[in-house]
Amino acid sequence: MFTVKWLNPSALLTDLYELTMSQVYVEREMLAPATFSLFVRKLPRHRSYLLAAGLGPFLEVLENLRFSEEDLEYLESLKLFKPVFLDYLKAFRFTGEVWAVPEGTVVFENEPLLEITAPLPEAQIVETLAINLLHLETLIATKASRCVWAAQGRPCVDFGARRTQGLEASLHAARASYIGGFTATSNVLAGKIFGLPVTGTMAHSFIESFDQEEGAFLAFAQSFPQNTVLLIDTYDTLRGAEKALEVARKMAQKGVRIRGVRLDSGNVIELARDVRRLLDEAGFPEIKIFISGGLDEHKIREIISSGAPVDAFGVGTKMGVSADAPYLDMAYKLVEYDGKPRLKLSEGKITYPGRKQIFRRYDPSGLFYEDELGLREESLPGVPLLHKVWEKGQLLLPGPPLSEIREKARENLERLPLDIREGRRTPAPRVSEALRDLHCRTAESVRRAL
Amino acid sequence: MFTVKWLNPSALLTDLYELTMSQVYVEREMLAPATFSLFVRKLPRHRSYLLAAGLGPFLEVLENLRFSEEDLEYLESLKLFKPVFLDYLKAFRFTGEVWAVPEGTVVFENEPLLEITAPLPEAQIVETLAINLLHLETLIATKASRCVWAAQGRPCVDFGARRTQGLEASLHAARASYIGGFTATSNVLAGKIFGLPVTGTMAHSFIESFDQEEGAFLAFAQSFPQNTVLLIDTYDTLRGAEKALEVARKMAQKGVRIRGVRLDSGNVIELARDVRRLLDEAGFPEIKIFISGGLDEHKIREIISSGAPVDAFGVGTKMGVSADAPYLDMAYKLVEYDGKPRLKLSEGKITYPGRKQIFRRYDPSGLFYEDELGLREESLPGVPLLHKVWEKGQLLLPGPPLSEIREKARENLERLPLDIREGRRTPAPRVSEALRDLHCRTAESVRRAL
Repeated sequence: MFTVKWLNPSALLTDLYELTMSQVYVEREMLAPATFSLFVRKLPRHRSYLLAAGLGPFLEVLENLRFSEEDLEYLESLKLFKPVFLDYLKAFRFTGEVWAVPEGTVVFENEPLLEITAPLPEAQIVETLAINLLHLETLIATKASRCVWAAQGRPCVDFGARRTQGLEASLHAARASYIGGFTATSNVLAGKIFGLPVTGTMAHSFIESFDQEEGAFLAFAQSFPQNTVLLIDTYDTLRGAEKALEVARKMAQKGVRIRGVRLDSGNVIELARDVRRLLDEAGFPEIKIFISGGLDEHKIREIISSGAPVDAFGVGTKMGVSADAPYLDMAYKLVEYDGKPRLKLSEGKITYPGRKQIFRRYDPSGLFYEDELGLREESLPGVPLLHKVWEKGQLLLPGPPLSEIREKARENLERLPLDIREGRRTPAPRVSEALRDLHCRTAESVRRAL
Repeated sequence: MFTVKWLNPSALLTDLYELTMSQVYVEREMLAPATFSLFVRKLPRHRSYLLAAGLGPFLEVLENLRFSEEDLEYLESLKLFKPVFLDYLKAFRFTGEVWAVPEGTVVFENEPLLEITAPLPEAQIVETLAINLLHLETLIATKASRCVWAAQGRPCVDFGARRTQGLEASLHAARASYIGGFTATSNVLAGKIFGLPVTGTMAHSFIESFDQEEGAFLAFAQSFPQNTVLLIDTYDTLRGAEKALEVARKMAQKGVRIRGVRLDSGNVIELARDVRRLLDEAGFPEIKIFISGGLDEHKIREIISSGAPVDAFGVGTKMGVSADAPYLDMAYKLVEYDGKPRLKLSEGKITYPGRKQIFRRYDPSGLFYEDELGLREESLPGVPLLHKVWEKGQLLLPGPPLSEIREKARENLERLPLDIREGRRTPAPRVSEALRDLHCRTAESVRRAL
């Protein structure tokens, strides 16, 4: 119904070295299949798991990846590249294979979210795009899921758009936070593109542009009788609550119920208690209290554990940029080329070679027990998490609808033992004997060759 | 020559409440001019100034802001909006006036980067876009300028693309870091769009895909004889340096000079010293040493103050997301409507009313001395920083080229006293008597009306 192809960047959105390296590959006919593995080496300090997201947008980009005439003209103007390579880029299509964990899957350190096997230059050129898109949505889905957990069943809504890192990031944040369990977004374009519920209240500027706070409340309620949440902290929160009640009474006479009030500043714990009492005493127990302003999982937990009568949270910037952990140590590493396992030995940055599979095991009660990271051809106990999603340059199946991804995330998160869910334990996968062997043998042969 | 209009988001990229509030404004014919002021209330803990950026992209978006047929269909499908308002949106154009500090200007807390005056709904609807675009580029330009300062004249290059928060963010990061003094970017699309110098070296995967490190080095040098920087830490940095020297000798026989080597892991201070010695002893004092891997201004300062012989820095993720301060407390507040000053009194979030000007003063040596924040019509001593850039819905002048913006930034930063440049002092503007008076009078009249 509405535009689905919302991301269509030029294939030039890549690091220059992906192209210079690829020229060497093309010149030397190094076109054998290479497998790259995308994973997070070490989780940030405040994360005990990751919620995988971003695969859908990445595959959408991959499907449309081309170098336009204009792109090629630009590359030629750099006077770096040879005609044989520019011709290669002109015909460039991604013809490879992609294995990935489904979006909404919980993963841990060193576990591949994605493995790409393709002729070496193809697999190399998509590196920047693959990391960028999986990185951002995984980052945000994880953060959002922590907020949802802290909110203990109360809805969390995405208010991040204005301070995400870019406009596109606001769309990813809306999508990823929905995967992580948020119930709606204030971002209208995200609502349109992803079919998300959109929501919102009113701004302080709205109140200020009327001469009287009550006049502003009434005007809004008259225009949106089914959907009025009044922002009551512009001048004085308790007086604002009284004015909201005046309007609630007037509207009630016409059979219209005010949905809620929003608090965006001050000591929201105390204010929520006082406002709740005012609303209840006035006979409006159904009017909800929404909280916003600088929220994250820590602040939400503090509010909830105070027992403050809060019904929903508008969570913005700190979720939208994952403020306490604004990036992941995500890498895309060559693990096999031309049938041989590959690795680097750089200090502190060791990579496991070979194509992989993650085998997930549950305890008898159905809770997550452990992961084993093995080679793809191994058959180990447990549920394999990586699936083939793309073959011979073709998407195998359209991605699941967002509602299904969100449900998968919910189920994955529910199966985490409490100590992991709450951030007290950060499990690392067990490494299979075959993978350890391959790692040792590869490292040894690399060292011998030095 | 190449596409300049790289950002053309739908006008739907806004928070839902901007539209609901605007419906009320349109219904009630509240179309008088409103002025909103965009500023950062309080600087993050590790920032002593901000380097304004993002105005160019914002004005480009503003120029093209329309609601398409498809957008309007979507809004209609929400069953929230009335025909009179959808008709208003159909004809929507930004017809207002914009005042702004030029990109590359240093600003401090509470100083407007931008003031918009337009019919109330127009000024309201562009809020999300205005904050988002000025926020991100100002954030990154500021962070980048701190890295450049720490590098004491050695070039810093943007390697951020893979882990910025989205693909669009990588373009803003390339642009903003160039404004902040970076010399080049690895981001090819950013190079094309903004005319930035593009650069890069090679990845570990390149080395690994050859059977021998030396073979990889040689292949690259042969393909890019004018532009070879060899990554030497894939297996063992010092042996990598020796192999780079082998290749340097072979290439020297053909009259080709290797430009540099790159270290991306390990104790780079010690390694740089050892590698420098090897290069010098072998008769290659002109081969430069590039450092990358987890760099930010703190790590760069540590490397420089150790005296390590480093020639240039590749700065990625921590600059690209402004990791230690990933967002700014940036707000867009109504300060005047229909000729009357406006403000809110919410606890801890006080706003100065009225249209403003910043007057900057220098000491006799030409260094920044103080700012005074006044009303726009005041004539106070000092250089006024806000200029009219847009009038009656028209851009007054095309924005300056990026090179000029970068030069302005350099000059602005050079005029900062050392204690501000180094983060030891965070000046706040003096507030003019007229502005303080207006604030008191407005607050009083608001309180009286409660």
